[in-house]
Amino acid sequence: MTDFSAWTQACQAQTETTLAECLPLSSITPQRLHEAMRYAVLGGGKRVRPLLAFAAGEVTGADVNRVQHAAAAVELIHAYSLVHDDMPAMDNDALRRGKPTVHVEFDEATALLVGDALQSLAFDILTAQPLSDDPATQLNMVQLLALAAGSRGMAGGQAIDLASVGKPLDLPELEFMHIHKTGALIRASVLLGAQCGTVDAATTTALDHYAKCIGLAFQVVDDILDAEAPTATLGKTAGKDAADNKPTYVSLLGVAQARELAQELRADAHKALAHLGTPAERLRQLADFVVERSF
Amino acid sequence: MTDFSAWTQACQAQTETTLAECLPLSSITPQRLHEAMRYAVLGGGKRVRPLLAFAAGEVTGADVNRVQHAAAAVELIHAYSLVHDDMPAMDNDALRRGKPTVHVEFDEATALLVGDALQSLAFDILTAQPLSDDPATQLNMVQLLALAAGSRGMAGGQAIDLASVGKPLDLPELEFMHIHKTGALIRASVLLGAQCGTVDAATTTALDHYAKCIGLAFQVVDDILDAEAPTATLGKTAGKDAADNKPTYVSLLGVAQARELAQELRADAHKALAHLGTPAERLRQLADFVVERSF
Repeated sequence: MTDFSAWTQACQAQTETTLAECLPLSSITPQRLHEAMRYAVLGGGKRVRPLLAFAAGEVTGADVNRVQHAAAAVELIHAYSLVHDDMPAMDNDALRRGKPTVHVEFDEATALLVGDALQSLAFDILTAQPLSDDPATQLNMVQLLALAAGSRGMAGGQAIDLASVGKPLDLPELEFMHIHKTGALIRASVLLGAQCGTVDAATTTALDHYAKCIGLAFQVVDDILDAEAPTATLGKTAGKDAADNKPTYVSLLGVAQARELAQELRADAHKALAHLGTPAERLRQLADFVVERSF
Repeated sequence: MTDFSAWTQACQAQTETTLAECLPLSSITPQRLHEAMRYAVLGGGKRVRPLLAFAAGEVTGADVNRVQHAAAAVELIHAYSLVHDDMPAMDNDALRRGKPTVHVEFDEATALLVGDALQSLAFDILTAQPLSDDPATQLNMVQLLALAAGSRGMAGGQAIDLASVGKPLDLPELEFMHIHKTGALIRASVLLGAQCGTVDAATTTALDHYAKCIGLAFQVVDDILDAEAPTATLGKTAGKDAADNKPTYVSLLGVAQARELAQELRADAHKALAHLGTPAERLRQLADFVVERSF
């Protein structure tokens, strides 16, 4: 088994290549829109969701040529959500991945259309070629992504997030928000990667539980980093949650207890994978990575 | 064959019922988002795209229970595009279907999320149940909608539209814009309705040509109505194109010649259906309706 860092670099490079191929060239009309779509998606990001898809695909013996398209589709949904989230009507953020956000570099109308078109492109990619031996399974995969992205998934989580600004949420309410806002798409990454291969009900249940733990851990660590890391390391504006008076794991628990929670979630994620043996090793390494990352 | 007006009313009522069932109840969290999604979609609109889907389904003997879901999916894409289009960053319109637009009635952030979530819901509906005997065909249907909605379809058309404000477009450029902005989704309505039944290559070609004519005719008539009809009749702000200095068929051709073009497109649409006999009668009536409407 290659070293984790080499593996992540290979997956990230593969994701970049797939995304660059799937995104329309900026020479195609409407050029400015396509240029902005490529600007929003390419050349940055940790690609956590694609990494999870690739790692889950290893559990089910999935063909990497299939997984890369599932991974790209999920990443496009994530990228669109960042573009819309950064807009003045939402978080009004000027910096993302160390670059000006799309509405700053281009304009608001273009940012709106970039997000819209990236979402459509995700569903295009997920249906453009066989990702499963069974087309009916692939239809279920498309629905899984649609539900994860929609009002009972990511978009719903953002609505709950918006409604919670300045309100005293308790821990279950904060968890409920994050299960939607980031958890739904992380779950989709894991399950779609797995469904590119052959997956039984017990494995699905294990992966589902793993994804829930990792999704929450990701958010807890995000909150810790937002409170502690400098803007230069994050590539986005640090300290923004506190400035916006947003409830976070740090504001509710303090940094020390938030760190403990992240470690508990990591342990639970490992436990969920206990019966999946060596093929789940990358998922274990990703659980560690998500908790230990510093950016 | 029932009277055209009774048929459209039945299809519109069916569409309203299907949409009301597919949209999450406003009692489900996040309530405000779901309330706004229902506000954006229900209780208004000509439902031209669903009518086209139902009429095309009659050509191919499609099961109405299937067509209604394809029709609802296309209408949700249309509805999301209106919500985003009306936002201050785009057309900044306060009135739609005789009611305050979503960002006016709710707020901008909610309008952004409503559009995003309606697009996801369209793909959910298109995959939630069998719409074709062959799941592989259904995957193609999903891709057709994704392409029609995306940067090489509707969203791309809106980008071209934005870039054209205040610029002297010629007729081919205006047509290119509308083939994307409204034509792509109208084409998807016709083809998805047809694909719920059994469709051969010759029929697809005929329907494709019909859809192109009807899509352009729809836009030409829209431009005439925007120039001539009072706001109360339209249910949206009239005279807005001229005020925004937008190129339209009326600004390029004048009203008389625009009317002639609409009649030519209607004749072409009828010609495309010539070999499809009686089952295409509703599509013929719709071509007449699109050109003769006064709202």
